[in-house]
Order: sequence, then C-alpha cells, then structure tokens
Amino acid sequence: MSIDAALRALAPVLGDRLSLSKSDLAAHGQSETHFDPTPPDAVAYPRTTQEVSQIVKICAQHRCPVVGYGAGTSLEGHTLATQGGITVDFRHMAQVLEVHSEDMTVRVQPGITREALNEDLRATGLFFPVDPGANATLGGMAATRASGTTAVRYGTMRDNVMALEVVLADGRVIRTGSGARKSSAGYDLTALLVGSEGTLGLITELTLKLQGQPEAIAAATCAFDTIDAAVQAVTATIAMGIPMARIEFLDAASVAAVNAYSRADFLVTPHLMVEFHGSDAGVAEQAERFGDIAQDCGGSAFSWASKPEDRTRLWQMRHHAYWAIIASRKNTTAIVTDVCVPISKLAQAVAETQADIDAAPIPAPILGHVGDGNFHAILLIDPDNADEKRAAVDLSAGMAERALALGGTVTGEHGVGLGKLPYMAAEHGAGWDVMGQIKRAMDPLNILNPGKVVRLD
Amino acid sequence: MSIDAALRALAPVLGDRLSLSKSDLAAHGQSETHFDPTPPDAVAYPRTTQEVSQIVKICAQHRCPVVGYGAGTSLEGHTLATQGGITVDFRHMAQVLEVHSEDMTVRVQPGITREALNEDLRATGLFFPVDPGANATLGGMAATRASGTTAVRYGTMRDNVMALEVVLADGRVIRTGSGARKSSAGYDLTALLVGSEGTLGLITELTLKLQGQPEAIAAATCAFDTIDAAVQAVTATIAMGIPMARIEFLDAASVAAVNAYSRADFLVTPHLMVEFHGSDAGVAEQAERFGDIAQDCGGSAFSWASKPEDRTRLWQMRHHAYWAIIASRKNTTAIVTDVCVPISKLAQAVAETQADIDAAPIPAPILGHVGDGNFHAILLIDPDNADEKRAAVDLSAGMAERALALGGTVTGEHGVGLGKLPYMAAEHGAGWDVMGQIKRAMDPLNILNPGKVVRLD
Ligand SMILES: Cc1cc2nc3c(=O)[nH]c(=O)nc-3n(C[C@H](O)[C@H](O)[C@H](O)COP(=O)(O)OP(=O)(O)OC[C@H]3O[C@@H](n4cnc5c(N)ncnc54)[C@H](O)[C@@H]3O)c2cc1C
Ligand SMILES: Cc1cc2nc3c(=O)[nH]c(=O)nc-3n(C[C@H](O)[C@H](O)[C@H](O)COP(=O)(O)OP(=O)(O)OC[C@H]3O[C@@H](n4cnc5c(N)ncnc54)[C@H](O)[C@@H]3O)c2cc1C
Repeated sequence: MSIDAALRALAPVLGDRLSLSKSDLAAHGQSETHFDPTPPDAVAYPRTTQEVSQIVKICAQHRCPVVGYGAGTSLEGHTLATQGGITVDFRHMAQVLEVHSEDMTVRVQPGITREALNEDLRATGLFFPVDPGANATLGGMAATRASGTTAVRYGTMRDNVMALEVVLADGRVIRTGSGARKSSAGYDLTALLVGSEGTLGLITELTLKLQGQPEAIAAATCAFDTIDAAVQAVTATIAMGIPMARIEFLDAASVAAVNAYSRADFLVTPHLMVEFHGSDAGVAEQAERFGDIAQDCGGSAFSWASKPEDRTRLWQMRHHAYWAIIASRKNTTAIVTDVCVPISKLAQAVAETQADIDAAPIPAPILGHVGDGNFHAILLIDPDNADEKRAAVDLSAGMAERALALGGTVTGEHGVGLGKLPYMAAEHGAGWDVMGQIKRAMDPLNILNPGKVVRLD
Repeated sequence: MSIDAALRALAPVLGDRLSLSKSDLAAHGQSETHFDPTPPDAVAYPRTTQEVSQIVKICAQHRCPVVGYGAGTSLEGHTLATQGGITVDFRHMAQVLEVHSEDMTVRVQPGITREALNEDLRATGLFFPVDPGANATLGGMAATRASGTTAVRYGTMRDNVMALEVVLADGRVIRTGSGARKSSAGYDLTALLVGSEGTLGLITELTLKLQGQPEAIAAATCAFDTIDAAVQAVTATIAMGIPMARIEFLDAASVAAVNAYSRADFLVTPHLMVEFHGSDAGVAEQAERFGDIAQDCGGSAFSWASKPEDRTRLWQMRHHAYWAIIASRKNTTAIVTDVCVPISKLAQAVAETQADIDAAPIPAPILGHVGDGNFHAILLIDPDNADEKRAAVDLSAGMAERALALGGTVTGEHGVGLGKLPYMAAEHGAGWDVMGQIKRAMDPLNILNPGKVVRLD
C-alpha cells in the first residue's frame, strides 16, 4: 500500500480539486460526537461519476483507503479516515438531475442535501420525506440507511431509494434497480448498498421516491405528566393503525434544552410532537382519534401549530434538539445511543433506560422517533473526565444489550461506523460473518472505508 | 460430485421423509408453464431447521444440488432440478409460530401458504396482504420477492418481510433482521435473501409485517371502451395519490376467459377491478375521487361488490384468471410475461404490446397489477407447434426489451428462474456480475438451486 503513490497519480487527474490543505484535512477528520480526530491524507472533490471511478481505480492500484463523505453529520465516526487515505467529498456533485412528476420520482447526485432537494422540489407539489435532524446529503443518508421524524409514515431510506448508480471497489460503475416500482430481477443490490456506509461502493446517483404534498397538514404538541404516559399513548396510537405522519417523543430534560436553545416555552414535562397528513376530513378524523388516546393517557389538550410557519418552527426545534441538548451542558461531548425495539417493548425499554440514567452521574436527555420504537439517549460527558466517560460507555452498553434482549437492534438509524462495531457480533451472530464474506467479495483489497461495519480477520 | 453418496448419507437422517418415488419426483420436476419436466433425484421433507441444516451439510459434502420447494407455483422454471439433486419440500414446516398482535407481526415457518396464514389470523383482526394469484407458500413468496393485487397499497415481499432464519450453503443457520421496524445495523441481509430464489440460502422461518383489517372495505368493477382509457384512468389515479388498496386491469380477452371459467357475466371489454380500504368516510371519499377519474376516462358506472362474499368471489375470479386464460384455449401451454415499467410509461407499454399481439398468430390476453406499472401477457401456445412457440418467444423478447427501453424491469414479481436469465445481462449490466460475485461468496460450491438467477463462468 502506498498512499503517497496514489496521491501522486491523483494530482494530475483532479488538479486543485485534490486538497492537502491542513484545514481541509482537519475538517474531514472530525466527528460530530466523541471520536478523536482522524484526518485523511487528502480530500478529493470529484465532479463526475467518471472522476469518482478514476479515483477509485487509482486507489485500488495503490491499495489506498477511500472514504466517502457527504455532510459529515454521521454520529458513529463513520467518515473518520482511521487508516488514512483519500476522503471523497461529494459537494460538487449536488445536482437534481431529473424530476419525473408523473412517476413521483427524482434522480439526484449524492451530494445534494435533503433541504436543498426539497427547496428544489417546492414548485412541483412533491417532497422527499426522509429527514434526519441534520441537513445531511442524500448520498450519506442512503449510505447510513437514515430515517427521521416521518419514517413512521413514509419509511426510511430503505423504502425510498429505488435505484442507484455506484462506483465499485475496482472502479466499475453499475446501476442497480430501475424506474419500475417493483422488480424481482435477481438480488436486490439497491437494498444491499443502502446502509453499507461506503464499504461496498461509492454512490454517485440516486433515484428516489417522492410523495405528494398532502392536501391538509396539522401539527400539534401534547404534554404528559410522565414518560410512561406519553409512551403508552404512542403504543396505543400505532396499535390503532392511525397513519401518523410524525410522532416524536421528548423527555423533560430534552424539552428544557429546546426551550433554552430555541427560545420556546414548552411546559417542562415529557411531550409528544405529532403531525397528521391527509385530506381535510382525514386529518380531522386522525386528530380526533389520536386526541382521544392522548386524553385517555392523561395528556394535555393539543397545542396546535396551525400556520405553516408555526409548523416549520416546531419541526426546526425538533431537528435542532440534538444541538440544544449539547448546548445544555458546558464543555461537553456526546455519546449518542440509537436503540430500536418492537413497539410492544417500547415502554419497558424507555422506563429501564430512564432508571439507569437516574442512577448515573451524567445527564442524558431522551428523545426519539417513538412511532418506530426508536429512541436516543444523548449521553453528555465532560471529555476530560474518565469516570463520566466510563459511565456513558456502561449506559450505552446497557441500552444496546437491553435492545437485543427485547428483540430489537442497537442502531435504528444512525448506523454502525466505529461506535456500534462492538455490538455487531451479538446482534447478528454468524450473519455478521456473512456480511464479511460479502465485503470480501465486493472489495477484496478492503480499500472502501476500511475498518467500518464489518470485521475482516 | 456424487448425488448417490448424498442420498445414502441422507437416508438414515430422514427415513421415509426422503422420497425416491417416481410420482414424487415427477410432481416436483414439473413446471406451471412451458418448461420441460426436470425431476430431482430425491425429495426431502424436513420437519425442523436442524434437519434442513443437516441436509445442506451433507449435500455440501457431496456437492449435491439442493433445490428449495414451496408450492411449486412459480412461473419461470424456478424449482426445476436441472442438475438433479435433492428437492427440499417445506410442506411439513408450515406452522404459525407466534402472533405478536401489538407489534402487528407474525413468525411463521416457510411452508405455510398465504391462505392458511390468513385463515389462522382471522380472529386477530390482522391480515397478511401479499397475495399472488396462486396459493403459494410464504417461503416461496419471499424467495421470489412476490407481490399481488394489494402491492400498490401494502408493498411486495420486499416490504413485508422483517426478519428471516436461513440455512446457508454450508449448513450454518443465521437470523437476519430483528423485531424492530427499522435498523441500520450493517448490510441488509434480509433484503438480499428476499428474491434470491433459493440460490443463497434456504429460508426456514420468516417474521412478517401484518396489517389491521380495515374498518371499511369496498370493491367494484368498472368497464371501459378501450384499453387505453382504462390505463389512463390508472395513471391518473396513482398521480392523484388516491391510496388504492387494489387496482387491477383485465383486457377483453381476459374478461371473456374469466366469464367462461368462473360463470361470470362481465361485459366483454377492458375492465378495472378496484378496492378501497380505510375508515367509512375515507373509503367513501376515495371511491368518489376514483369514480370521477374513471368517468372522465369514459368508464362505466361502478358495479359494486358490496357484501363480503361478493368481494371474496370477485378476487377469487381475479386470482383464478391465469387458470381461466389457460382454459380458454384447448391443449395449450403458457409463456407468462411480467414486465413492470414506470407508471408514466404504462399506457405506451400496454398499447405497443397490444399491437404486437394483434400482429402475432397466438392469443395473448393481458392483465396485471397496473397500479405498480406491472402487467402480464399470457402467451398461449400449442406446445407441438414450433411456429407458435417462436412467435411467443419473439413477443416475450419484444416486451422485455421494451420494458428495459422504458426504464423498467423484465420481471416485476415472478422472478428470474430459468426463463428470465437471458435478459439479466441487459437489465443489470455489470451489476449482474456483482450478483455472481455474491453468489460465489455465499455458495462457493454452487449447490443451492444451481443454474438459476446468476451466471457463473
Ligand atoms: C443534529 C443531528 C441529528 C440527526 N438526526 C438523525 C436522524 O433523525 N436520523 C438519522 O438517521 N440520522 C440522524 N443523524 C445522523 C446523520 O445525519 C445521518 O447519519 C446522515 O445520514 C449522514 O449523512 P451525511 O451526508 O452527513 O453523511 P456523512 O456523515 O458524510 O457520511 C456517512 C456515511 O456515509 C458514507 N457516505 C457518504 N456519502 C457517500 C456516498 N456518496 N457513497 C457512499 N458512501 C457515502 C460515509 O463514508 C459514511 O460512512 C443526525 C445527526 C445530527 C448531527
Ligand atoms: C395462477 C397463478 C397466479 C400467480 N400470480 C402471481 C402474482 O400475482 N404475483 C406473483 O408474484 N407471483 C404470482 N404467481 C407466481 C407464484 O405464485 C409466485 O412466484 C410464488 O411466490 C411462488 O411460491 P411457491 O411457494 O409456489 O414457490 P415455489 O414455486 O415452490 O418456489 C419458487 C422459488 O423459491 C424457492 N423456494 C421455495 N421455498 C423456499 C424456501 N423455503 N427457502 C428458499 N427458497 C425457497 C424455490 O427454490 C424457487 O426458486 C402466480 C402463479 C400462478 C400459478
């Protein structure tokens, strides 16, 4: 392996779009969470699929690691160049290529962010629903199999990516999927690549399913006295089959953080934030049925966010909740947990987690996409305090083990990266070895984001 | 490779559940469609995952082919033992293992049929939506990534299988997925195995998503003067986002066949058969909106199937349409086509197909799950007439090429088997080689349903 040789070969191909600048390397070597900085040797900024293919071919020749990079908002150290090499930043491949209104699909380049995409779609009456809290890129979202507040209604990236163009580990370019809504034509390579975190290929184009803007939208918040009451309301709502567009949980600590960060004045108790999509009559019906359940569980009357700008503000507050929670403690860094359990186990999982947190020496607000059974505790630690770090690691491990014991997963949406590697054997058993076999078959030189997702002995 | 040695080793393990009877071999060597009979050397009837694992281990040791078998209703020669070996028939593994009502999921063994499963679920208020026309097994349906009349609303097997237990080519048993609704924990092995047609592993257990029985259901038929008018109504309906539970197309020839076979009296013109699911108000609203569109396209007034038994009869007629079409010509065998195109191309694809059929010397009724852009022409040939066979092969190839040119797929739901192998290179390009790499990694001895889905040079 010779990274230097790869850099020398890449320089004439990319010119000043191969950056060795200290600040560039540092920016791409950082993580949103607690991982130590791990910069790459260079950052490449390709403009075309052809260039991505050339980069990978050259890197394969010199066995130089290649790490894909979208917005860098992933939470498990996904983009860290732990073995050095080239980070491929897709910011110059950020176009909407083609909107197919009648088919309700769009072709995009991987570097476009979800906000830019929806801005671009505004006039079409269509939107792309998957919305992680950060303004992530579609390439990164596909690579992590991301979800967000609307997954309970519209699904995750698994459900919303129809087709991909991918550069493989040897530089070959393939297209997976098609413009058809369904297909039985062999192995589902699209689904295999979605969630592969840049370890099987680099995504250079995506075809996405879009949704029609609903005729009517209504959003509201509802306060509860206890966490359990709020979670019971969620479980009952899902069991009733009410087609919630969003149903988000925040505990009192998260609400307090949001109040401080976003200058809001929610009652500092557990909350649900909900949204209904449909026809006028449909939305009214859903809201009434959910209202009955919430009331049965002791929830407050709804506080409606009626005007579009109020709704935007509500969901912005929710999307910024992570930053709000980080800001709630001085000089802190976060370990983010991401368990997802069967909905019937949600109340138990949250209650036991809360008890563990109460007994721990660190603050850890809880919030989550509870309609899917998915929640996060944001473990806030003083990075220089070893006791706190140990407590956080224990809490995180406890949550992961509990999720598995309850039939769930250690990561509902953030992905494996480095942080969730230690749990993969427990979650998948021999299935994890199969993932390794697939990795070896598709990337025999182990150049694509090496050290992530799978273990290669 | 020694099949005989494998049979000798298997006999003491399975006793009389290893069958060498002529009639058993013949039954398992038949195809629903035009393929020549190709019996296996033996049929195994395992009772447990453990036994399936033992069978595969022994077969691996002796390099003996292993072909999974559900109900044998697949249409592309999927289950034919073209290289001999052991067919593994799952009929004794057909239990419902556990219903999780609150989570709306069920764990089943692979040999249960969709009708038996729904019969079993009846008291729970839940149902499993995916419904191919035949009473297929859930294992077979997962293996072919099947769909049916309700896929337009509830998705295909891709969307409704949450987790699997699978025996791999070396006999190891893995579990993929979990009880959580979503996960980002590494490669999506569930999605990779769904649609792999028994070439990557044998499915010994499935966890499936269920749906709540809708509060209200209404079904209706609507007659049109021309194929184009009916298809335009479909396209407009999907574009409007009306959440159709079913929207099925039959051309006049299909309707005539159904009339004869099921003693019905539909007007012999193109028809849509539709169903609406929701609340009382929701169903009324959907029906009204669809009715307006149908009328705009020159459709007749609805003929409602109001009573549950009328609805059952309607969908039974639809599910039996394939048999009805086969019965419409004496001494015939079928080549079944299965293209799926972007919905915006549906009208063009159907019209051009119809023109080709009009010019051909064989009858070929058209019907399909048009809400997904998926339709079939059932090419009826006299098996002893070489001209007819050639015409059918040409028609089928023309449809496949057109589907690809329009951005679609050569198989929307039936799968590859033997019949669609010739189109895989055109559909997937280098992606087909990647499928081969995965096959080699997971089944290096090529014992699992060899000769299907992929090409191994
Ligand atoms: C405030 C905040 C809130 C968040 N909320 C959510 C949430 O609700 N739901 C959720 O799922 N996540 C959430 N996240 C995590 C993060 O936003 C997601 O993981 C997102 O999908 C990452 O996208 P990105 O563009 O930032 O990717 P990056 O972080 O740049 O990369 C992520 C991974 O994808 C790979 N990758 C990137 N681009 C490509 C490509 N084109 N081809 C192949 N591989 C590529 C990288 O190598 C890396 O492994 C949140 C993060 C923050 C900071
Ligand atoms: C009248 C009629 C109508 C039809 N309508 C539809 C339709 O609407 N939609 C649709 O999708 N299909 C339809 N089909 C095709 C067929 O019903 C489907 O392909 C179905 O999924 C096959 O299921 P099966 O149990 O019969 O599987 P089989 O035919 O027995 O096997 C199919 C494939 O799956 C493999 N397999 C079976 N069980 C297992 C297992 N446990 N583990 C691993 N591999 C296994 C086999 O090796 C084979 O490759 C129709 C067929 C007929 C005859």
